Amino acid sequence: MKATLDCIPCFIRQTLEAARMVSTDPAVHEQIVREVLRWTGEMDLRIPPPVMGQRIHRRLREITGVEDPYRAAKEQSNRMALSLLPELKAMIDTAPDPLITAARLAIAGNVIDMGVNGTVTETDVRRSIQHALEEPFTGDSAGFQQAIANARNILYLADNAGEIVFDRLLIEQLPPGRVTVAVRGAPILNDATLTDARAVGLHEIAEIIDNGSDAPGTVLADCSPEFNRRFAAAGLILAKGQGNFETLNDESRDIFFLFKAKCPVIAAHAGVPVGAQVCMDGGGA
Amino acid sequence: MKATLDCIPCFIRQTLEAARMVSTDPAVHEQIVREVLRWTGEMDLRIPPPVMGQRIHRRLREITGVEDPYRAAKEQSNRMALSLLPELKAMIDTAPDPLITAARLAIAGNVIDMGVNGTVTETDVRRSIQHALEEPFTGDSAGFQQAIANARNILYLADNAGEIVFDRLLIEQLPPGRVTVAVRGAPILNDATLTDARAVGLHEIAEIIDNGSDAPGTVLADCSPEFNRRFAAAGLILAKGQGNFETLNDESRDIFFLFKAKCPVIAAHAGVPVGAQVCMDGGGA
Repeated sequence: MKATLDCIPCFIRQTLEAARMVSTDPAVHEQIVREVLRWTGEMDLRIPPPVMGQRIHRRLREITGVEDPYRAAKEQSNRMALSLLPELKAMIDTAPDPLITAARLAIAGNVIDMGVNGTVTETDVRRSIQHALEEPFTGDSAGFQQAIANARNILYLADNAGEIVFDRLLIEQLPPGRVTVAVRGAPILNDATLTDARAVGLHEIAEIIDNGSDAPGTVLADCSPEFNRRFAAAGLILAKGQGNFETLNDESRDIFFLFKAKCPVIAAHAGVPVGAQVCMDGGGA
Repeated sequence: MKATLDCIPCFIRQTLEAARMVSTDPAVHEQIVREVLRWTGEMDLRIPPPVMGQRIHRRLREITGVEDPYRAAKEQSNRMALSLLPELKAMIDTAPDPLITAARLAIAGNVIDMGVNGTVTETDVRRSIQHALEEPFTGDSAGFQQAIANARNILYLADNAGEIVFDRLLIEQLPPGRVTVAVRGAPILNDATLTDARAVGLHEIAEIIDNGSDAPGTVLADCSPEFNRRFAAAGLILAKGQGNFETLNDESRDIFFLFKAKCPVIAAHAGVPVGAQVCMDGGGA
């Protein structure tokens, strides 16, 4: 999907929030905000918003000299989510439909998104879990189950650290031996990388690859040839999070998008209310 | 007070909101947003935020060719507030302390601020009234009463259309014959001008002047010599709204600022929580 004018104040707000997260130096905050004002003043609004996010966070890493500014935040999110794992597992085990309950919980975990909210607490996550279990899917859960049953292999595009623990629970409900999980190729925001996938034990239950890109989404032109090959060869793609929706929703592929609609522009684009938990059959499915 | 980096995403959001309010043409929205991105990218952060607001709205009027884009909105706010007048008068007449109740209501009326919220409904206004009557002042009400009793003449700086009806109720409680009300010198946002002052009958109870400026605040350097003379000669100044606080809070004068702290930057600067109703003794008082 394309960026809109409404994305621009949000880019600026996110830049300032991220700058304050990664540096205590007001001169750094001012420098990056001024640079992003210039970039957005001239930006091509046909790009998906995560492409601008990628540029902003690259520049922040360059200015601060810190390669992975969200490392500590990601580790904390992983720990917090791992501490919830036993009770989440129990919810799934006792559910009448474990696959759908696991999918609901995976969407609930999408609340751990530091592009939208820099300070997600355990209370926020518990509230999101409660919401996910009580509210209906916006989407096609029968189609989702059918697509999974039919797929010869599944490429699961993960989103954020912490959230990846919730993904693990869903992946455990998918047909064993058929799932590959892809994470970002390099640090960007609090998005999960190989380090996070291993930290939450995903390598024990699925093959893990990275996509070769540091965009907070899946910008195929920026991903590695190997990832593109795997993407093309996948029987079914499960894409977690807003960033993957924003960058892949125009692809003609069998994709199910699973995310929490936190942004009004994305919600409008998906045709759902803000706050909806979305399990959406993408273009080609 | 100076602008901060936090003001910048808000400038962009307000620009887009105002552009959509004054024009249905997406090309106009994009043009002004891109211009404001360039301006803010180079802006001097030592200016008070309303100076940027003035520049944005001047440019919007220039691009659209509409001299007073908020005219209809201002008239509607005046009508809505006038319809509340009898019950507001009754609240004051039956209050143990009519002056303080009138001041509380005048602050409640400051919710009608289209720079902060483009769509203020009667429900919002009623909620603000309720809040104003129930919550304590953040400030010095004894000092406020004393300053009014002592002042040989009072210059009342009005803020917005609609809100000016609430101001009228407070002005009716001030010593008769000693009050001059100043409004903006030209249309800017939904700020009150001479047209609004007359529409709500303020000319029947006080002298009305305009300040010669189209800033959404009181930028003395931009105001007329006559207004500056009146400002200097006033025994006491009552300044309504955030814009007047932002532009006058560093003046060494006897000023009481009356406003609802709607913006987190201003609230922090005033040392009050967001949402507080402020009656604050300014620098020189």
